[in-house]
Amino acid sequence: MKYKPPIVAINFKAYSQAFGSKAEEIAKSAEKVYKETGATIIVIPPFTELFKLKQIVEIPVFAQHADPINPGAHTGYIPLEAIKEIGVDGVLLNHSEHKLITTHLYKLVKKAKALGLTTLVCADEPEIGASIAIFEPDMIAVEPPELIGTGIPVSKAKPEVVTNSVRLIRKVNEKVTILTGAGITTGEDVAAAIKLGTAGVLVASAVMKAKDPYKVIYDMAVKGLEALK
Amino acid sequence: MKYKPPIVAINFKAYSQAFGSKAEEIAKSAEKVYKETGATIIVIPPFTELFKLKQIVEIPVFAQHADPINPGAHTGYIPLEAIKEIGVDGVLLNHSEHKLITTHLYKLVKKAKALGLTTLVCADEPEIGASIAIFEPDMIAVEPPELIGTGIPVSKAKPEVVTNSVRLIRKVNEKVTILTGAGITTGEDVAAAIKLGTAGVLVASAVMKAKDPYKVIYDMAVKGLEALK
Amino acid sequence: MKYKPPIVAINFKAYSQAFGSKAEEIAKSAEKVYKETGATIIVIPPFTELFKLKQIVEIPVFAQHADPINPGAHTGYIPLEAIKEIGVDGVLLNHSEHKLITTHLYKLVKKAKALGLTTLVCADEPEIGASIAIFEPDMIAVEPPELIGTGIPVSKAKPEVVTNSVRLIRKVNEKVTILTGAGITTGEDVAAAIKLGTAGVLVASAVMKAKDPYKVIYDMAVKGLEALK
Amino acid sequence: MKYKPPIVAINFKAYSQAFGSKAEEIAKSAEKVYKETGATIIVIPPFTELFKLKQIVEIPVFAQHADPINPGAHTGYIPLEAIKEIGVDGVLLNHSEHKLITTHLYKLVKKAKALGLTTLVCADEPEIGASIAIFEPDMIAVEPPELIGTGIPVSKAKPEVVTNSVRLIRKVNEKVTILTGAGITTGEDVAAAIKLGTAGVLVASAVMKAKDPYKVIYDMAVKGLEALK
Repeated sequence: MKYKPPIVAINFKAYSQAFGSKAEEIAKSAEKVYKETGATIIVIPPFTELFKLKQIVEIPVFAQHADPINPGAHTGYIPLEAIKEIGVDGVLLNHSEHKLITTHLYKLVKKAKALGLTTLVCADEPEIGASIAIFEPDMIAVEPPELIGTGIPVSKAKPEVVTNSVRLIRKVNEKVTILTGAGITTGEDVAAAIKLGTAGVLVASAVMKAKDPYKVIYDMAVKGLEALK
Repeated sequence: MKYKPPIVAINFKAYSQAFGSKAEEIAKSAEKVYKETGATIIVIPPFTELFKLKQIVEIPVFAQHADPINPGAHTGYIPLEAIKEIGVDGVLLNHSEHKLITTHLYKLVKKAKALGLTTLVCADEPEIGASIAIFEPDMIAVEPPELIGTGIPVSKAKPEVVTNSVRLIRKVNEKVTILTGAGITTGEDVAAAIKLGTAGVLVASAVMKAKDPYKVIYDMAVKGLEALK
Repeated sequence: MKYKPPIVAINFKAYSQAFGSKAEEIAKSAEKVYKETGATIIVIPPFTELFKLKQIVEIPVFAQHADPINPGAHTGYIPLEAIKEIGVDGVLLNHSEHKLITTHLYKLVKKAKALGLTTLVCADEPEIGASIAIFEPDMIAVEPPELIGTGIPVSKAKPEVVTNSVRLIRKVNEKVTILTGAGITTGEDVAAAIKLGTAGVLVASAVMKAKDPYKVIYDMAVKGLEALK
Repeated sequence: MKYKPPIVAINFKAYSQAFGSKAEEIAKSAEKVYKETGATIIVIPPFTELFKLKQIVEIPVFAQHADPINPGAHTGYIPLEAIKEIGVDGVLLNHSEHKLITTHLYKLVKKAKALGLTTLVCADEPEIGASIAIFEPDMIAVEPPELIGTGIPVSKAKPEVVTNSVRLIRKVNEKVTILTGAGITTGEDVAAAIKLGTAGVLVASAVMKAKDPYKVIYDMAVKGLEALK
């Protein structure tokens, strides 16, 4: 496993806080929590912010997506090579807001591996998680889309989605790191995610729209560490 | 007219030369030609290179595309606000490799204007140029897609596409700046484009894949200036 | 003008009433109203119902969409030639639930004309209506998407959208037939649409989900005819 | 297994022969071969031809695609319920010319099952076949896209793609019927497909563009039957 649990992966999405000085501040807070706790904190900003954030923090920086193309005559699309070039560490793929055709997902996971980029792939149902696990990405985040942005953690609303996902994924892939996503709001949710058998969480609005993002990330890291004991 | 002719707009696409040190070198060459000749040179790199290039050159930098969204819960998409945030000057829209739904194009042109971003919209047929001219973008590039990347300039192969475009566009819009695209390879092609009644060119492979991009850009600027006399 | 006002074009969408015996019944009701009143009633069922309905009614039958392809190796797509083959009279294009890339819309309108198919193109803003009018379709329906399915007629909520559309469209195209869409529920709405300078309406849920579709269509035809006097 | 081998599934695509009297003739030929040989022959015509062909032949008729929607306000899209309504027997999904997002494919397979529609899902790589097998469709066709339409049968050019697919699919799903696709031209190719461990073929141009489609289908059925002995 490349990243050790607890893992808190923060999807910046295209929130207004995902850009400019606010984005810098959140990335810096994430790095601070890592330095204080040792928890794995991954930041996932928009394409246009990747270069700058990669310069200013020393924690893993992932892209939010990559297009299924090779370098060449493509206007306005971003191949994996583009994010590799600027030193990005990994890529989020198949988020429920940016789903991929199965063939494209397969090819992107395979190419990312060849380029040395870590892959974090979203799955919105247990069977989809298992299906994706066959492609051997580094991490899979189980995210029931109906809970995204609700503040209702999947670990409370539908714990069986997480446990079923873990069960079905493990049948076909013993190594992939599994994260819990959708509705994660507090450190308690992170602890619950870990107790359901996953290595951490994929989170977005709870951090991005927080009054004090540092405090939220810190709470998630600390509660995650406690749950692992 | 915001930018004065001759205009040479360089679409970096996702060529391997569009990233990293090679991209810097081409942007620097473009800036050098501008300083030496006074011609308008616009560079249009991929999203991931925008921030850095905007720091190192003092010529207009455009994005290759923008997604038809507002800031919010969108993963892996780039709203106009994202490119505005990093100081980018404008945006290329509706390139034949990244065509837009009419409604999205209309909304993007309108919002770009509100944000102070210059718009350069591609059209692959004279009637499409006229149709887009109604939305009042700053610039329209006429690009017959069958000539893109061929090295056969539209000004030679289909001069009537350019003159018809100018005629139809001018019926509905007297102000928009018109560029000639597709197959532009040499300074001669730029001169021809200007003689057909347009303000310059949109170019890609001829610069990006040149042994000496500086030389190609310089030739285009100088021949363009001569044709304007 | 191919079809004389008042025009009531009924988009069956994919409502459960759009299939099987219910679809037949609605198409038959539409035909009955035509026979009783002389108003133009157009039915627009899903692809899978076109063949059958075209056999059983003698009013115009349109497809809801066509894909921007030519006959050939395309799986699951429907070119204009496919709907021409089964005797369909026309095609609805660019509905706000199935928007088209500008280039595709242009090519579809042009090819439909060559094939002798009538085109009815949706526009969700006055400027978009004008932009599309340049392609010279037979009919344009002005449909602000925020009113679709609300039962709030555009003629009441935003009459200026209709009058601005008529004004901007007429600047570039004097011949195209203009319809009013979105929120049309009653015969009164049809009368209002005609008084705002359009030739009729594009309607969906008000007919498709009516207890008595015949009664709704009849009311629309009669009030439309009265408004024309 | 619902359909017994050898299976010859004929994708009509949108070839000009896929419409009108030519389509009828090919469907009738397929039915004749079934009656003469007992081989399973499935015809897969475009949406607009489904109703008519379903009336005139007594062999399985599949749709080429279905859209990932439920009945409702969707214009120009075809839900599974639409094809069920007209008595169609099954649906081809994820053809390399009409690929689906993983989540949509999962939901379509699940809903088709609930509606009693047989599913035939295309996979262009062995791992993708295995990934899809987890969703438990009725049939999977292994179709390396680079061979589609070439006349070079996958069984000759890349037999290991077929055998690897069978091996990987069987690891996660023992029941699914596996077909060989891409480049299938003759009865010999069908025999080869069966000897590589699959139940038959998915074919398109070799039948659709044949001078004598009956002869090609007959040859495929007979050679397939011989290979099974």
